[in-house]
Amino acid sequence: MSAWVLPDHIADVLPSEARHIEEIRRDLLDMARCYGYELVMPPLIEHLESLLSGTGQALDLQTFKLVDQLSGRMMGLRADCTPQVARIDAHLLNRAGVTRLCYCGPVVHTRPSGPHATREPLQFGAELYGHTGLEADLEILTLALDSLKAARVDNISVDLADARIVQAVLQGVQLPAAEMATLHAALAAKDASELKSLTRNSPVATSQALQDLVTLYGDVRVLDEAEARLPALPAIRDALVHLRWLASHLDGAIASFDLADLRGYAYYSGARFSMYAPGASDSLARGGRYDEVGSVFGRNRPAVGFSLDIKAVAAVAVELPLRAAIRSPWAEGADLRLAIAALRRQGETVVCVLPGHESEVDEFHCDRELISVAGQWVVKAV
Amino acid sequence: MSAWVLPDHIADVLPSEARHIEEIRRDLLDMARCYGYELVMPPLIEHLESLLSGTGQALDLQTFKLVDQLSGRMMGLRADCTPQVARIDAHLLNRAGVTRLCYCGPVVHTRPSGPHATREPLQFGAELYGHTGLEADLEILTLALDSLKAARVDNISVDLADARIVQAVLQGVQLPAAEMATLHAALAAKDASELKSLTRNSPVATSQALQDLVTLYGDVRVLDEAEARLPALPAIRDALVHLRWLASHLDGAIASFDLADLRGYAYYSGARFSMYAPGASDSLARGGRYDEVGSVFGRNRPAVGFSLDIKAVAAVAVELPLRAAIRSPWAEGADLRLAIAALRRQGETVVCVLPGHESEVDEFHCDRELISVAGQWVVKAV
Repeated sequence: MSAWVLPDHIADVLPSEARHIEEIRRDLLDMARCYGYELVMPPLIEHLESLLSGTGQALDLQTFKLVDQLSGRMMGLRADCTPQVARIDAHLLNRAGVTRLCYCGPVVHTRPSGPHATREPLQFGAELYGHTGLEADLEILTLALDSLKAARVDNISVDLADARIVQAVLQGVQLPAAEMATLHAALAAKDASELKSLTRNSPVATSQALQDLVTLYGDVRVLDEAEARLPALPAIRDALVHLRWLASHLDGAIASFDLADLRGYAYYSGARFSMYAPGASDSLARGGRYDEVGSVFGRNRPAVGFSLDIKAVAAVAVELPLRAAIRSPWAEGADLRLAIAALRRQGETVVCVLPGHESEVDEFHCDRELISVAGQWVVKAV
Repeated sequence: MSAWVLPDHIADVLPSEARHIEEIRRDLLDMARCYGYELVMPPLIEHLESLLSGTGQALDLQTFKLVDQLSGRMMGLRADCTPQVARIDAHLLNRAGVTRLCYCGPVVHTRPSGPHATREPLQFGAELYGHTGLEADLEILTLALDSLKAARVDNISVDLADARIVQAVLQGVQLPAAEMATLHAALAAKDASELKSLTRNSPVATSQALQDLVTLYGDVRVLDEAEARLPALPAIRDALVHLRWLASHLDGAIASFDLADLRGYAYYSGARFSMYAPGASDSLARGGRYDEVGSVFGRNRPAVGFSLDIKAVAAVAVELPLRAAIRSPWAEGADLRLAIAALRRQGETVVCVLPGHESEVDEFHCDRELISVAGQWVVKAV
């Protein structure tokens, strides 16, 4: 096998895509900063128990394991930064009030999440700890939306759901774990007949609520329907009120609802959202409330957050035009070196043509060149 | 053991340091871009044989090993990006002429390189392929210097050396591998008596040259002395001429020389440099010519490059003052949300005080606040 073949679902990012990703990275970090989110950089590797505490089997399977030669202990290569940032909030910062944190870095998965997915996403995310009210949910939702807009993603659509609805409906259902998994799959697939057969021994109200759930997706009228048709449980009523409030505060962005949406079911504890854009095969950003996230680190704080993969965002975001560069000859004199340095200080890209390479193609697009006119170095259009 | 204790020599980067590192990261990438270096992003994990091809045992020991669940093959977590970028030049881009590439990302080491070293440096570097002449060496040297200056490192000193000098002097020495390693250590420690005893069976000229080498460090007069005292071998003469030329083109930066400097001995093939600054326990940036670097990928191109660890640079670089933020209350109305959005579009950081958290300490320094005056939201100094 050739030494230069990369593993499946692992790729080099080459210049034009790398530039685009770097631009988006800066736009996202700047947006989070404008919102008052402080940047943290958790490590790539950690002890396995802190990386996986309370996160469930799915993340365990996604995480590469390493032996620490210094201690003999097992470490993991992070597959998700969210638990790391919860650890930082709980222990390193340990602030009493509201804490806003953001992060950006690569994560690595043992297996790709889809046929075209990378095993090395570049994860960007933001977390707001310490506030139970919906204002925190709204801030994270708005930040996620503004982040995608800052990355020049067009035609973003927002899907809202609430983890409490499915949880409340399923409270009456007693099923073995395997059958519960099948039920979750049927809900996700909106398979009404499978749901009916799985809940044949459950109370009629539960079975009917599940049947109703799979039809409850679409625009804001879904919330009216849900109010009329779903059981009048406090958790469901709260969830519907919260979703309506969030949707009414989106300042122009149109939200749709999918009350049977189960993604992150075990993880989220309240309202959650997914954002989509044309051309992306999966959601571009996902987030919501997960108030239990810090509990394994001894600090059960309210938490809302979101994350996205910058590589996936870059694939659908509009690319800025490449700024043209200046070509310069190579010459001994300090005057040329000073002229070049002055241009670079102004932010110009100056590419020196090294002796003997005059006829080569520019990899940077050069629309000007530095030439000597009457003993002075001047910039002229090519 | 607590779930939140990190492995030794692994640390979270907390907000103020993270912001500093991110600023330096941007300054370095912008500087490389001004010089015409295109950004690439090689992956964190690769097949072991491509990651370690031709790089020697030291990098092998530094590299964490992983099993690829998709193929059963061994992969490595990169400990150095340089071989990856050489692979990209050799295979993916495969250009005939000069190629300039830069990169920035984390690398992971199985063991720390020193008592206070991190096992997760943030490596930034630049590589120039395809040009044999000294102009390439000078460009990389100048870019490294400008990069450290852009990161606000003060009082940088430059050490120049040339891998060919020690190589040429040792050409006559026949020693078993273990004794050769001892000799290298004695040279590095400038231990003249150990060198004398190790070369008692070597030609007198060689033994004398090694004795001379350990005294040849200091300012540019070292080059005159070396010309007078070292054997008149073509490789040594070339190296001295090259070092003199490079030092004379540094436009004000003062270089010193250490002709017995052995670091990267097996790796470099020509002039090499290290850059130091007060407060840093080791060199901050290292680079030079390594013309063989792409040969394992089937393309033996001339190559010059350098790299540095942004975390180490941040530890000694001058930090920019934190830009003050604007504090805002939380209120229902869309007019406040629009006022905040407008300020953020101007690049301001606006931190919303969520209901009930009015008395908390700001983590961002807020020198202004947004208040309602006669129905208008206006910014006032605190």
